Amino acid sequence: MYEILDRINSPRDLKGLTTDELKALAQDIRDAMLNRLSKHGGHFGPNFGIVEATIAMHYVFDSPKDKIVFDVSHQCYPHKILTGRKLAYTDEAHFNDVSGYTNPEESEHDFFNVGHTSTSVSLAAGLAKGRDLTGGSENIIAVIGDGSLSGGEALEGIDFAGEMNTNFIIVVNDNDMSIAENHGGMYKNLKALREGSGKAETNLFTAMGLDYVFVQDGNDIGQLIEAFKTVKDSVSPVAVHIVTQKGKGWQPAEKDREDWHWHMPFDPETGKGKWNWDGESYGSITCEFLMEKMKNDRSVCAITAATPTLMGFTEDKREQFKGQFFDVGIAEETATALASGIARNGGKPVFGVNSTFMQRTYDQIMQDVCLNGTAVTFLVYSASVWGMSDVTHIGIYDIPMISNIPGLVYLAPTCAEEYLAMTGWALEQNRYPVAIRVPCNGVVHSDKAYPTDYSELNKFEVTQQGRGAAIIALGDFYQTGEQAAALLKEQGIDVTLINPRFITGLDTQLLESLKAEHSAVITLEDGVLDGGFGQKIAAFYGDSDMKVSCLGLEKLFYDRYNASEVLDQLGITPEAIAERAKKMLDI
Amino acid sequence: MYEILDRINSPRDLKGLTTDELKALAQDIRDAMLNRLSKHGGHFGPNFGIVEATIAMHYVFDSPKDKIVFDVSHQCYPHKILTGRKLAYTDEAHFNDVSGYTNPEESEHDFFNVGHTSTSVSLAAGLAKGRDLTGGSENIIAVIGDGSLSGGEALEGIDFAGEMNTNFIIVVNDNDMSIAENHGGMYKNLKALREGSGKAETNLFTAMGLDYVFVQDGNDIGQLIEAFKTVKDSVSPVAVHIVTQKGKGWQPAEKDREDWHWHMPFDPETGKGKWNWDGESYGSITCEFLMEKMKNDRSVCAITAATPTLMGFTEDKREQFKGQFFDVGIAEETATALASGIARNGGKPVFGVNSTFMQRTYDQIMQDVCLNGTAVTFLVYSASVWGMSDVTHIGIYDIPMISNIPGLVYLAPTCAEEYLAMTGWALEQNRYPVAIRVPCNGVVHSDKAYPTDYSELNKFEVTQQGRGAAIIALGDFYQTGEQAAALLKEQGIDVTLINPRFITGLDTQLLESLKAEHSAVITLEDGVLDGGFGQKIAAFYGDSDMKVSCLGLEKLFYDRYNASEVLDQLGITPEAIAERAKKMLDI
Repeated sequence: MYEILDRINSPRDLKGLTTDELKALAQDIRDAMLNRLSKHGGHFGPNFGIVEATIAMHYVFDSPKDKIVFDVSHQCYPHKILTGRKLAYTDEAHFNDVSGYTNPEESEHDFFNVGHTSTSVSLAAGLAKGRDLTGGSENIIAVIGDGSLSGGEALEGIDFAGEMNTNFIIVVNDNDMSIAENHGGMYKNLKALREGSGKAETNLFTAMGLDYVFVQDGNDIGQLIEAFKTVKDSVSPVAVHIVTQKGKGWQPAEKDREDWHWHMPFDPETGKGKWNWDGESYGSITCEFLMEKMKNDRSVCAITAATPTLMGFTEDKREQFKGQFFDVGIAEETATALASGIARNGGKPVFGVNSTFMQRTYDQIMQDVCLNGTAVTFLVYSASVWGMSDVTHIGIYDIPMISNIPGLVYLAPTCAEEYLAMTGWALEQNRYPVAIRVPCNGVVHSDKAYPTDYSELNKFEVTQQGRGAAIIALGDFYQTGEQAAALLKEQGIDVTLINPRFITGLDTQLLESLKAEHSAVITLEDGVLDGGFGQKIAAFYGDSDMKVSCLGLEKLFYDRYNASEVLDQLGITPEAIAERAKKMLDI
Repeated sequence: MYEILDRINSPRDLKGLTTDELKALAQDIRDAMLNRLSKHGGHFGPNFGIVEATIAMHYVFDSPKDKIVFDVSHQCYPHKILTGRKLAYTDEAHFNDVSGYTNPEESEHDFFNVGHTSTSVSLAAGLAKGRDLTGGSENIIAVIGDGSLSGGEALEGIDFAGEMNTNFIIVVNDNDMSIAENHGGMYKNLKALREGSGKAETNLFTAMGLDYVFVQDGNDIGQLIEAFKTVKDSVSPVAVHIVTQKGKGWQPAEKDREDWHWHMPFDPETGKGKWNWDGESYGSITCEFLMEKMKNDRSVCAITAATPTLMGFTEDKREQFKGQFFDVGIAEETATALASGIARNGGKPVFGVNSTFMQRTYDQIMQDVCLNGTAVTFLVYSASVWGMSDVTHIGIYDIPMISNIPGLVYLAPTCAEEYLAMTGWALEQNRYPVAIRVPCNGVVHSDKAYPTDYSELNKFEVTQQGRGAAIIALGDFYQTGEQAAALLKEQGIDVTLINPRFITGLDTQLLESLKAEHSAVITLEDGVLDGGFGQKIAAFYGDSDMKVSCLGLEKLFYDRYNASEVLDQLGITPEAIAERAKKMLDI
């Protein structure tokens, strides 16, 4: 069925192929990827663009002895196909055999589980140092896209590599795109190098101390093989700058490169998505809200680190608000510091970021923002068991990470209306850095009136007054708590239900007052329990008679899980919570 | 007493001075700094090197309308002297009026409280964007040292700035030094630019999209004024590369630039330190231990992010182990990822880092190390109420930050012998990433035998068996707990004392067993309580009858505090703990 690919079970099988056969193999790989991607979805553009380079690398180098590290691994599918995992692309029954990222548990050809950007050069530099410490002699190759170069860790790594007097090869896969368009001054230099066939007035890579090799057509197997042969076994660090076409070989992806960076399942004939999603989301709600604010107040601005559509800002809307919408590149540290500077000089910045990527800017949140008390608004997406489920992208660690930083106000809205009320307040006040944990349980609406002022910090809201037990249900677990309370009510048990609203502090007065008519408290949070919200309440009641039970997620690297199953196992269902309450009350 | 400085109370007072008067002012500033530094200690070399540049900036620009942001603020003393704070340098009675860092609470000429490196460009870019959003027209200037350029946030910021079509000036203060020597490929380019009077084959700054101006002698006021006048009110981003001499004007500091980066009080005649400290420290203990290991095993290596003496590696020792000691520059992210790569390829890496700077590499600890399960050893220094006491350098936030990351083993030794036992185990095992919280209460010795194997995770040690109350005393608060137990014993009360050893997990079996003969538990930890160790124990006992009281630090930005006073206020003294135990036991 696949002319050449059927004969390829490991990189060894490439070595005897002719250039024409390698080209035919490229087509086979694209066909196999199209098979998986049209049915399963996944990263499209980066993988279609890197087919030839992957073939050429495996043709020239000897993996796994020679070690290739793929940055962010958005472009690792051809590598997986060539290293014994082709069934996961050609045969639907095997789709779940592989993750979407490089993964040492899958293959000896993968060295790291990678899903965050800009790490490859530093990780691979470590492999090179490890080789030198232990007397090895293999080639070490980092493959990094032009978009990923904007991340600080990548630039640090390149600078470090520039001083290594040893074999170290950085393949810069330049497709002139990040997820969206690139942002940053360096891209002017990359453009000049592309247009000057590798020659320009200045050169970022040689400025960082690297040797430099240019490949004009990074989708031409012959040119690539020649270049890789040149640098194989080199003894000083070198950048091989290859120019590739994102989405190469699949017309819709060549044309709309942003839309096809990652794509849902689609019709392989037309490219039309199998599902249409134009419905309401927290992205669309946020975008509508911010656009209205921006129109009325020129000092309001939104910041993204290369994921503009998270806040709903598609290309047309970015263009419409280009003076107030800033994409810093894949540079979360700069996004945070920039926001702090904007707030300090009179602007009203909102930085929207996925929980998992907010991890990349811990110190800037603490030092540049919280320590300086600048009124930055963070919108934290996908911070939930219902968020992304790949192990590299889990968003459940944010509460211990940032809620224990002094000075930050971290809010947990329970529905869309409360989310907008909190976001509106965060934006207009100028006393506190505020983070808002965007709900992830679908868009729940409420016709309740929500406060417009949250400046009385750590004020919890009693939404149902009962006795005996109190359920303190944080953020998007509120509805779960509400349903548990309803179940108990059906059984004649009126418990108290509380929306704490604030993650970063306790309403000690309210908690104290609960002691009068309650003997049990259950806390619910959509994040890891360790270091989180409920444990603070347990500690508050530690030397009292109040019984406290904390429900939340475990301190684990969850991977490709089913959220309902996880919640079921942890007793985070209305039924299990109601049973727990009864048990704590000896009913 | 100071010829010119006596007349200078704000930058306005500089405007009418002649070049000769400005030169005399430079000498006055050095004299004033010498006065403070010889008696009080502080950052020496960077401040002596930047005197002329600071004068020239304040001569050309109009602070505070024009806004200058000093990176890491190791070089802000001349700025403070010129902006109304000279008494803090000339008059010992006023030394405590100022912090060692820029501080908006002190002056309208300071815009951020800054003590971590590499943040200035991104923060200042925010000021520039804020200006543009609100219709301002001032100049925005970031001042950054060559050493700080190696940090990812700085490089991200420069890249971002390279795309801004607006006024933005980056003064690159190139003294060819970090705290120690510079590391990274970019320094070859800076050297070439210095030697080529600003011309070289390639140029890091133009490669990042900036305009470029070179100043050959950055200690010559005339050259500096001319350059700053050229870029004032420019409408595109520009780097002004000035070559300065670290420690300029004070011979000992010009000669030994590493030793005089920061210096203790000294004799202003001879430069001889007022105190000699050759005694035992955790730096010297670590260095001795690691050197022995490195000699016997070529795969052992130590990593620093520009603070090599933290682990005791002075210049001679770095030279001796240059194949096994890696300084990555001020690049904690790369240090962590590098360590992971080394471990993955057979090496045994140890990364020594201050708690406050470990914050700069949260995501790499989680993603590059813990998620990949690489056996990296982190030695975490100054993680204590007894650590650095400047608000920018507090080291008490690490427990909530890293102990809630899955996969990490975080150990808390109670004395030097236990520290070495744990470090030895961490280095030789290859199953877990291990962090070790280096004690900070002086070097306490013990003649106890410590285990050589900690692979049975989360096993607490009962060091004194009693009943009624149990004191669980973590890390360097162990001795405080021990003293409290001793006080109670004197009163006939035999409590249980526990060394938990592990921060990252609970010995649930032991905790369960305590219920039989104990009704009260007191936890002690040298870090913020929120999200920390004790709260986990409180949550463990939440639905039982055990009373738990957690003692530790508050979630605050402490600043220039007295540790004894803080501990006293929080009841973390042997006496107060003993009283608390009695109260919990109703004695």
